[in-house]
Amino acid sequence: MKTPDMKKAEYGEAGYGDNSPIAALATPMSESALAIIRLCGNRGSEDKRDGSIELLAKIFSNPKKLLSAKGNSLIYGWIAEPQESSADKKINKKKNNKIDQVIVSVYRAPHSYTGEDAAEISCHGSIAVINAIMSALKRAGFREALPGEFTFRAFMNGKLDLTRAESVMELVSSKTGKGREQAIRRLSGLLEKEISYIKELLMNVLAGAEIFLDYSEDEFSGSHTDEEAGVLPGKDLAKEAMTRLKILSDLWQQERIYSEASLVVLAGRPNAGKSSLFNYILKEDRSIVTNTPGTTRDWIEALISIKDIPVKLSDTAGLRNPGYAPDEVEQIGIEKSHELLGIAVLILYVINGPDGITEEDRNFLEKFYLDGKKIITMWNKTDIAPFPEKNMQDELFQKWQPHGVSAKTGEGISALLDKIADSLLYSAVARQEGGTVAGWELSPAGTGSERGTGPGTVRQKDLIQIAFLAVEEALLLAESEEPLDIIAPFFRTAINALGEITGEVFTDDILELMFSRFCVGK
Amino acid sequence: MKTPDMKKAEYGEAGYGDNSPIAALATPMSESALAIIRLCGNRGSEDKRDGSIELLAKIFSNPKKLLSAKGNSLIYGWIAEPQESSADKKINKKKNNKIDQVIVSVYRAPHSYTGEDAAEISCHGSIAVINAIMSALKRAGFREALPGEFTFRAFMNGKLDLTRAESVMELVSSKTGKGREQAIRRLSGLLEKEISYIKELLMNVLAGAEIFLDYSEDEFSGSHTDEEAGVLPGKDLAKEAMTRLKILSDLWQQERIYSEASLVVLAGRPNAGKSSLFNYILKEDRSIVTNTPGTTRDWIEALISIKDIPVKLSDTAGLRNPGYAPDEVEQIGIEKSHELLGIAVLILYVINGPDGITEEDRNFLEKFYLDGKKIITMWNKTDIAPFPEKNMQDELFQKWQPHGVSAKTGEGISALLDKIADSLLYSAVARQEGGTVAGWELSPAGTGSERGTGPGTVRQKDLIQIAFLAVEEALLLAESEEPLDIIAPFFRTAINALGEITGEVFTDDILELMFSRFCVGK
Repeated sequence: MKTPDMKKAEYGEAGYGDNSPIAALATPMSESALAIIRLCGNRGSEDKRDGSIELLAKIFSNPKKLLSAKGNSLIYGWIAEPQESSADKKINKKKNNKIDQVIVSVYRAPHSYTGEDAAEISCHGSIAVINAIMSALKRAGFREALPGEFTFRAFMNGKLDLTRAESVMELVSSKTGKGREQAIRRLSGLLEKEISYIKELLMNVLAGAEIFLDYSEDEFSGSHTDEEAGVLPGKDLAKEAMTRLKILSDLWQQERIYSEASLVVLAGRPNAGKSSLFNYILKEDRSIVTNTPGTTRDWIEALISIKDIPVKLSDTAGLRNPGYAPDEVEQIGIEKSHELLGIAVLILYVINGPDGITEEDRNFLEKFYLDGKKIITMWNKTDIAPFPEKNMQDELFQKWQPHGVSAKTGEGISALLDKIADSLLYSAVARQEGGTVAGWELSPAGTGSERGTGPGTVRQKDLIQIAFLAVEEALLLAESEEPLDIIAPFFRTAINALGEITGEVFTDDILELMFSRFCVGK
Repeated sequence: MKTPDMKKAEYGEAGYGDNSPIAALATPMSESALAIIRLCGNRGSEDKRDGSIELLAKIFSNPKKLLSAKGNSLIYGWIAEPQESSADKKINKKKNNKIDQVIVSVYRAPHSYTGEDAAEISCHGSIAVINAIMSALKRAGFREALPGEFTFRAFMNGKLDLTRAESVMELVSSKTGKGREQAIRRLSGLLEKEISYIKELLMNVLAGAEIFLDYSEDEFSGSHTDEEAGVLPGKDLAKEAMTRLKILSDLWQQERIYSEASLVVLAGRPNAGKSSLFNYILKEDRSIVTNTPGTTRDWIEALISIKDIPVKLSDTAGLRNPGYAPDEVEQIGIEKSHELLGIAVLILYVINGPDGITEEDRNFLEKFYLDGKKIITMWNKTDIAPFPEKNMQDELFQKWQPHGVSAKTGEGISALLDKIADSLLYSAVARQEGGTVAGWELSPAGTGSERGTGPGTVRQKDLIQIAFLAVEEALLLAESEEPLDIIAPFFRTAINALGEITGEVFTDDILELMFSRFCVGK
């Protein structure tokens, strides 16, 4: 395993690895009570003035207090325009050069997020104030932080492994309680522990195998004795590792439904009541996250949470008769609708109750059914158009089994939401073969009865998959009694993949790609 | 003057005045690196457990450390679900009930913003995390803070006067550097000092007048001696007060152009190039604040800063020929355009260069010119349609003197921005009679050569106006040698109005109205 210093030396000096004093807004760029500007960077060893606290002192009303501040303390004061020279100082003393009244949180190395000296400026949440402070910081010698650069430094300085670093970003973008819980478990290190445990198992297997190989080193022939063939020491350990990797892989399918919003699209003929249903669902859902209205001509989208599953609900433009000639703007809306329907995880198709199931409805349903889409059909306006009598129900009705709702009275909406949640959960479970993991109680090293914690990112999932396939292949080769020097490299591949997950093994470009996806200020 | 305690007693116990532990998100509700949840409330005198720090400790991973934390310190830990009972405690110990890893800033009374015990939770900037922490805080015993309630408490506890309290809100909504500077001057107390100085002047005048009145109390006749009539002691002080009030009032006109965005509307025939110009101006302006795009059918608006003047630039739907029958959506856009043009401070009218000035252009320009609107006329597409030759210029060209621009090459845009800024500044100065205040150097008590700082809100401006008119009236009465008992009440009115500005005099409903306009978390 590499030490943080080795990591730094390997990474080089430019961009993410340059260790210069950096600053960034850590809260959203919009009006609010407070905003936080974050900065970090150690005191340079040659020039004592270029540490982050030293640079900040240049634009702080009480530099002495700041410079002598202990770690984990709060200092009250003003941020002011930087003064370039002592002549400047005299002039500025008369000028009102105050930018904002602030509170500075001071952190001292190594007791900070990045492990360096660091500070957070809590200022008034005004765009003009934020811009002015950022510009003063730049003139004082900071450069703007790259995306994820704080967390990058935390990783480089050994404060976080990669699974924790990634969970920070996951956490920030978590939409519902379940998503947050999963990210928090990874932030607590549960995934790291499990990965390390599996890696340990495989290293034991490999060590055993290599001892065998060492003993047989003097046999240059390339052929093996009968005794060696088929004897994989620690086969049980390898099997346990494989099972655990499989569980992690399955958890990914189960968990990601809570971390990534599923696209659910409302469709139906014009006037079927899509917009009213859309609005009713939004009103019903108390945990709405965001709502991005467009025009009704176009489409409208809201991020809601149905039974803690984040759902991107989209209302599309009404679908028109083939004969209808839409104008240009309408055409854009219709194209967008088809695009959304194409990528939807679930389609909610609204039938206009009073009209019954029309030919247009049938065409739509059949087309998307044949495309393999999951569809919930709704019979809207049950307040004025109740379901036809049982004996009146035609073949179409039987086939599509619409769910009765009324966007006016709210009838059937709650049952609809349950149905949506079930449908999304079912697809998640169905995606994994078997789906037997739900109640599984993992006992990873040292964590007692904690429920298993799966991978949180595609990167982690892919590496787990690589490790799983490598171990599986190794075990298959062992079954067919292949020699150990053929089998061993598969274990090495698996161990390397697991090392990449936690960041013990990494390459510069992968790190950069990973952290550049973070938000600035994190 | 009332003490904070008197204020509290007067204000009663409900809503804003109830002193219970409160909490609120102080940063915007959207994804970012960090979010801050703010809370405050003193330890109750009877129940030692209901202070804000005590309540927070219930859901903090290291309650002992938090409870014993000194003011102005930072504590690292986890926020967890509150545990209702000790039985619960045992169960939860096994459960993963962590919500987020946080840093808590601890403030101890009276050294906090509100003067009470207080804390700020710095958590990950996730909506799910924010919701979970807020809900845990509520279960721990906090109620959600009302808008401006933190600042309200700061005022009630004597930490801020009303001019400073209002400047906090001003600062948060400041759009440009100038707006921020003005708010900061008021936050530093410059307006308060000037108001107090003027009040002092008037109180001296009133005191002198009241001594005269006291001496003449035994004369019951109602008539006055010749000596008393027309003798206003300290008339010069009253005149100085009036001049200073006039300056404050004028500064309002000058300053508010920097604090409130002026609406500037782009208009012109379809295809005149409005949208291209709009986009070019946005691109040119490096200090764009926000951009709210709608559809081109509707209208589109951006908040930009031209020479530090915040401008809401709006691109309207193209105006059509009277004969043209727009569809319904288009009609809405056209109506919105007319509404915007009606309230615009400045209209930028775009002429399509290749077409020259058409009759439609002329109709538009004349209509809005007659309405008294300020208009800058532009001749667009100078790249392909240069100005007609001098001798070719017709009467229309002379009359509307279009400013040549090209949204393609950028020609003339920089000069156009100067012209817009000049025009807006000119209207601001023109609004005040005279406009002689620009270079005025005020010397308010104790602030040396500071430039004058005007009122920051309509409330302050109106009260200054009331004070000004009262003093003016008093001086007029003095000129016409009216008796002092007629004149004195006008000074009392002025003094009261000035007392209301700083909050020495207040009524509950005015306070509530004022603070309820603040944002939550401030």
